[in-house]
Amino acid sequence: MTLDQLYHQIQKKKSFLCVGLDVDLEKIPAHLLQEDDPIFAFAKAIIDATHDLCVAYKPNTAFFEAYGVKGWQSLEKIIKYLNENYPDHFTIADAKRGDIGNTSTRYAKAFFEQLNFDSVTIAPYMGKDGVEPFLAFKDKYAILLALTSNAGAYDYQTLTADALPVYQQVLKTASQYKNSDRLMYVVGATKAEYLKEIRQIVPDSFLLVPGVGAQGGSLEEVYKYGANDRVGLLVNSSRGILYASQEEDFEDAARAEAFELQQAMEALLD
Amino acid sequence: MTLDQLYHQIQKKKSFLCVGLDVDLEKIPAHLLQEDDPIFAFAKAIIDATHDLCVAYKPNTAFFEAYGVKGWQSLEKIIKYLNENYPDHFTIADAKRGDIGNTSTRYAKAFFEQLNFDSVTIAPYMGKDGVEPFLAFKDKYAILLALTSNAGAYDYQTLTADALPVYQQVLKTASQYKNSDRLMYVVGATKAEYLKEIRQIVPDSFLLVPGVGAQGGSLEEVYKYGANDRVGLLVNSSRGILYASQEEDFEDAARAEAFELQQAMEALLD
Repeated sequence: MTLDQLYHQIQKKKSFLCVGLDVDLEKIPAHLLQEDDPIFAFAKAIIDATHDLCVAYKPNTAFFEAYGVKGWQSLEKIIKYLNENYPDHFTIADAKRGDIGNTSTRYAKAFFEQLNFDSVTIAPYMGKDGVEPFLAFKDKYAILLALTSNAGAYDYQTLTADALPVYQQVLKTASQYKNSDRLMYVVGATKAEYLKEIRQIVPDSFLLVPGVGAQGGSLEEVYKYGANDRVGLLVNSSRGILYASQEEDFEDAARAEAFELQQAMEALLD
Repeated sequence: MTLDQLYHQIQKKKSFLCVGLDVDLEKIPAHLLQEDDPIFAFAKAIIDATHDLCVAYKPNTAFFEAYGVKGWQSLEKIIKYLNENYPDHFTIADAKRGDIGNTSTRYAKAFFEQLNFDSVTIAPYMGKDGVEPFLAFKDKYAILLALTSNAGAYDYQTLTADALPVYQQVLKTASQYKNSDRLMYVVGATKAEYLKEIRQIVPDSFLLVPGVGAQGGSLEEVYKYGANDRVGLLVNSSRGILYASQEEDFEDAARAEAFELQQAMEALLD
């Protein structure tokens, strides 16, 4: 997918919502556990119930790997279902990968070629040669962790290194990497006040923003400090939508949650 | 596996060698491609040819994920084969995982329970709540990236933050995490001179050391600056052993490479 196409979808749907697919068998409605593949059945139902309200889906690989080969099969089915039925949606493998060059190339192949995701989240710690292999694929994107939404973000990301916080060093350095126009960045909604400075370093990049909802971030603040002239935001919600109800009405409840977020986004976009 | 058992194996075999299983179908001997599962066939042959010379095996998950569900099936077969036939070997899933707490728990379950590895490599960027879930499992270990062997290590790891290089901040902070006795650290052999300072921060921890061989690190220097009174080192070699020959004699050639490293280790241990 191109960035123009993504922006077009945001305008068309008046939404910059990403739905995170963290499928937990202990939380899905009990009646789905009788299905052959309950993980896929649940994800498919959520996708069908929310697709017109969001522009992106983000399966979290940990939740699939925890079920071994079966989980990986479910992940393959979900991305195939998305690509066949909703090709206009931007797809994100939330995998937080990253290694030395020849290994990062393998991860890129896994997510861009084998599974055919549009993007994958990656970790910055190993530096340039761990990131650039992900940027070698046309119309594919790597979403680099910058400032995360969790408490541990303050362990290293906000330390001052050479007069700048580490997360700003990451943004500054990474935006010089080859094909950096294929980079996006993770910035947690719980740290919306940091977005103003972040936008000075990466004015044009898309930001993937977790932490609205369950983790307490404010959509309004994220938009106020983080939006650029092409919106430039994908705001994620996972648990708040997926487990809005754990009963038979889960699709309606998920849709209602997604609709509420989309309406709030539409108000901001207008 | 307990750390006492690992130390006992090192003494018994006079080796602290870890063999990295980065199985690349483009590099394995052509005759193996006719097997049902060439990845497993190659890994099994390498394991059988080297097991008495090493104390650990380290499959690199990227090389399996690149082949999708089939690759994940091969990974399951390899760890099962190791646990059934060579239960005295320490097993490392080289996965570089790490995320917010509830997600890190899923990765820990994937590698410690679903696949039954002894350990998994993890990335520090997301901090404490991304690491501690991996430390909640008895006799299991998380191997945290500190100072890696690649060029990109200088992008962030060696920046000075609060008067210390970032990688030393990682060591200092992580060694205060709950159950930090279950932490090991990745330190690249290409930066052996840093090991002296590292040992002042984490004197008792095991270090996983990549970068000897293909990447140019010196085994002697790693031992000189990195060994503690219980050795405390696992030195990895992947490509140098796996692809010592790409012909039918690959097992003998791999064994010869592993033997050379084991002999050099034995000389240092004596």
